Amino acid sequence: MGGFASGPGAPRYWSNLVDVARDERGVTPQSEDFSAWYNELVFKAELVDRGPVRGTMVIRPYGYRLWELLQADLDSRIKATGHQNAYFPLLIPQSYLQREAEHVEGFSPELAVVTHAGGKELEEPLVVRPTSETVIGEFMAKWISSHRDLPMLLNQWANVVRWEMRPRMFLRTTEFLWQEGHTAHADEADAMRETMLALQEIYARSVREQAAMPVVEGEKTASERFAGAVRTFTIEGMMRDGRALQAGTSHYLGTNFAKAFSIQYAGEDGGLTLAHTTSWGMSTRMIGGIIMTHGDDKGLVLPPRLAPYQVVVVPIGRGEQAAEVTAAASALAQRLAGAGIRAHVDDRPQLSPGFKFNDWELRGVPIRLELGPRDLAAGSAVMARRLGVDGQAAKEPISLESAPARLADELEAFQAFLFERATAFRDEHTKVTNSWDEFAAAVAGGWALALHCGTPECEDDIKAATAATARCIPLEGEAESGVCIRCDLPSAYGKRVIFGRAY
Amino acid sequence: MGGFASGPGAPRYWSNLVDVARDERGVTPQSEDFSAWYNELVFKAELVDRGPVRGTMVIRPYGYRLWELLQADLDSRIKATGHQNAYFPLLIPQSYLQREAEHVEGFSPELAVVTHAGGKELEEPLVVRPTSETVIGEFMAKWISSHRDLPMLLNQWANVVRWEMRPRMFLRTTEFLWQEGHTAHADEADAMRETMLALQEIYARSVREQAAMPVVEGEKTASERFAGAVRTFTIEGMMRDGRALQAGTSHYLGTNFAKAFSIQYAGEDGGLTLAHTTSWGMSTRMIGGIIMTHGDDKGLVLPPRLAPYQVVVVPIGRGEQAAEVTAAASALAQRLAGAGIRAHVDDRPQLSPGFKFNDWELRGVPIRLELGPRDLAAGSAVMARRLGVDGQAAKEPISLESAPARLADELEAFQAFLFERATAFRDEHTKVTNSWDEFAAAVAGGWALALHCGTPECEDDIKAATAATARCIPLEGEAESGVCIRCDLPSAYGKRVIFGRAY
Repeated sequence: MGGFASGPGAPRYWSNLVDVARDERGVTPQSEDFSAWYNELVFKAELVDRGPVRGTMVIRPYGYRLWELLQADLDSRIKATGHQNAYFPLLIPQSYLQREAEHVEGFSPELAVVTHAGGKELEEPLVVRPTSETVIGEFMAKWISSHRDLPMLLNQWANVVRWEMRPRMFLRTTEFLWQEGHTAHADEADAMRETMLALQEIYARSVREQAAMPVVEGEKTASERFAGAVRTFTIEGMMRDGRALQAGTSHYLGTNFAKAFSIQYAGEDGGLTLAHTTSWGMSTRMIGGIIMTHGDDKGLVLPPRLAPYQVVVVPIGRGEQAAEVTAAASALAQRLAGAGIRAHVDDRPQLSPGFKFNDWELRGVPIRLELGPRDLAAGSAVMARRLGVDGQAAKEPISLESAPARLADELEAFQAFLFERATAFRDEHTKVTNSWDEFAAAVAGGWALALHCGTPECEDDIKAATAATARCIPLEGEAESGVCIRCDLPSAYGKRVIFGRAY
Repeated sequence: MGGFASGPGAPRYWSNLVDVARDERGVTPQSEDFSAWYNELVFKAELVDRGPVRGTMVIRPYGYRLWELLQADLDSRIKATGHQNAYFPLLIPQSYLQREAEHVEGFSPELAVVTHAGGKELEEPLVVRPTSETVIGEFMAKWISSHRDLPMLLNQWANVVRWEMRPRMFLRTTEFLWQEGHTAHADEADAMRETMLALQEIYARSVREQAAMPVVEGEKTASERFAGAVRTFTIEGMMRDGRALQAGTSHYLGTNFAKAFSIQYAGEDGGLTLAHTTSWGMSTRMIGGIIMTHGDDKGLVLPPRLAPYQVVVVPIGRGEQAAEVTAAASALAQRLAGAGIRAHVDDRPQLSPGFKFNDWELRGVPIRLELGPRDLAAGSAVMARRLGVDGQAAKEPISLESAPARLADELEAFQAFLFERATAFRDEHTKVTNSWDEFAAAVAGGWALALHCGTPECEDDIKAATAATARCIPLEGEAESGVCIRCDLPSAYGKRVIFGRAY
């Protein structure tokens, strides 16, 4: 799961060359039509293809490598905090879901059901897991007997299926990949500690540090809670069209699933007590979040820590010079790989340098190096960052000798720049609102911070009027009292709620 | 995906302590009843639990960690040989399978079918993938246009479902985890090179080096071929009851799937040619192979390179001494972890040292260290290997100071010893047979090397008489002519075939 090195035998992201030659590599500018930009980009950047069944996706190698890098980081954080990976069955007896009333109500409309197998009709239909609280609950009940068995800290990497009415690549697909943490604890305090650990120590840190997304941590209002949860927490990111994306959620399930599946333990005194459980998940939806947090009119902009290729070297030269320059480019990429940089040489002979520049810009490679005969003679290469950072030239020569150290620094700087840029964008598009007009204006292009009465009816009313929903009650919000932005009832949460339109 | 370190926050394989206290930790001796031994051991060693749906399994943390270690090695070999990971949908339109006649015939009896989703009956039933040649074929056809797009080298890590009539944990389960390589090439020669690369460079090397299984590489006879393949190659291991286990297969698919899905490319001259494809898979079945290749009457014996815990330290001491010894054990485990050794301290207070020794023997930990107050005072620990290696004491003191280096050497030696032991066992139980009586005697307890006529009818006849099947035509077999061991027709393969009873 290490670096994605160049060199002999190193994998490469093939491009469909006929398509490349045929279509225009550009996409509808983001500033013109955000939705069209996204929908074109995910395909043109070869992240994904449409599956044969409505709403499904094929994750292509370039997209899957991004997922693997995200996974590797998340997995190491999950393990470092004491969780163990396990694997539970895909097919769940339908009766399991029915044991928790809210859960079955929430998931029923989205289920895919296996009714036939092995050439026969099944006695009991099987549900393709939409999430695994029920089947894992069944086994926690079996494995937990004593207080010594707690906490039980499990995680699973898996595919899940939820039938989507309005599918969108990465964001809402009929099948998606995710991890789902499932834990059991002796009491509410320990389960809440876990719920917050998953949200803050695992998700928020991974997303900020790797994906450069300045997410806000908060709690969901009652109407946005997970089906079966007592409390749901979320990290919310702002996309470049001002909309919110829920990037990960962590649920305190109370004793709801413990009751439904009899997850109980004998205390020191031998008496039986129900366990308190949690669950938390992060999925391939995150890839959509990365695209919409950092991308621009030219295409993807990938944060270096998750970019399949951090540096692409484009050799420039014709005829006899081509071989020499390409050999030097390969040698350079090898040195970069030795320094832990994921480097790639684009030596496709039939494509022009200009075409390659556009192609790698579209695919969001953080740094491009151009290497021509004159550069080589001067012992240098031309470095082009995917985005201009303030006060820096768009292109500048760098010395080949010091390239590995220099590029490592440049990649770190680029990572930090993306986080700062996204933070500034989010802050510019977040308004403290004290009147309905201010609120409506704010959610048209970003987020509104507003007091709210806490009733689901009022949330529905706001949604009907503006398409905005309560994204979360931010953990860091300051205490504040007053009346609801919409209905003038007293504020329910003692602090402002973030409202925005969402994916 | 790195080491499985001890220390604060490190995960630990919890045991169900009530079960542990309740049941007897021993298993039916392997020598008495191999099948009972296996079936008890997989549960008692906490590798797996029975899923709620017949034939499914829950892979518990100890078993899943073994799989992760196997996966990490396999994945790095797959990437190092130029393949890229991708992900294709779980649910496949039923019509896709029907496009390749042999394929649908082979898999139809094993399919699980989704007929309802999103609250409605589907227009076309969807099959839960039993393997992905069809859906990947569909996309290869879309992505491949030119000879420049070849070879296309893809791999997928996924779950698959095949309805099993005679399920057995790890060996034949209704759902299992695997990787499936799928590649497309310009011609037969290149596709055959790939088929053999997957078999020999990826599978055989990984299995020998990591799992210490001395597998034989060979080709399947026509009746044992994959449904839709032109040629199927296999690696076969011998289990400790003399039976064979197919541990991985690699298929040359010719143009069968290329025809069915129109995978074709334009050559230099512009003319269209069908691609030649391959597929190859290795699954969680390998865990069963490891158990049955190395295990003994006391339980599992895990090869160090795949053991979740390579070294378990058991502190021994009561009262005041307990804290001191446990602290020293933790410090030792930290030093071992620093040296890249997966070490674990068993500090469960309510269990006796003797119980722990048996428990870790059952769970196959290669090396146990016992650390008591007197050992500590002497600056040493008592090392016990899971198996006695010839000429070595069962237990011996080792110095704490040099423990990391010493144990790294011991683990390597143990890994090599397991491979040698399994090789010797396989060779002792493989007989060159020249008469039917010799053949029947050989397959009763191991493998027979015999000439065969190559007709499926004769293979069926041998199976009916002895329960043995043709495991493979070994690649390394020497040229030899003669007549069939069963029917006296001339030998079909020009070399001896391996026959044996199989899992």
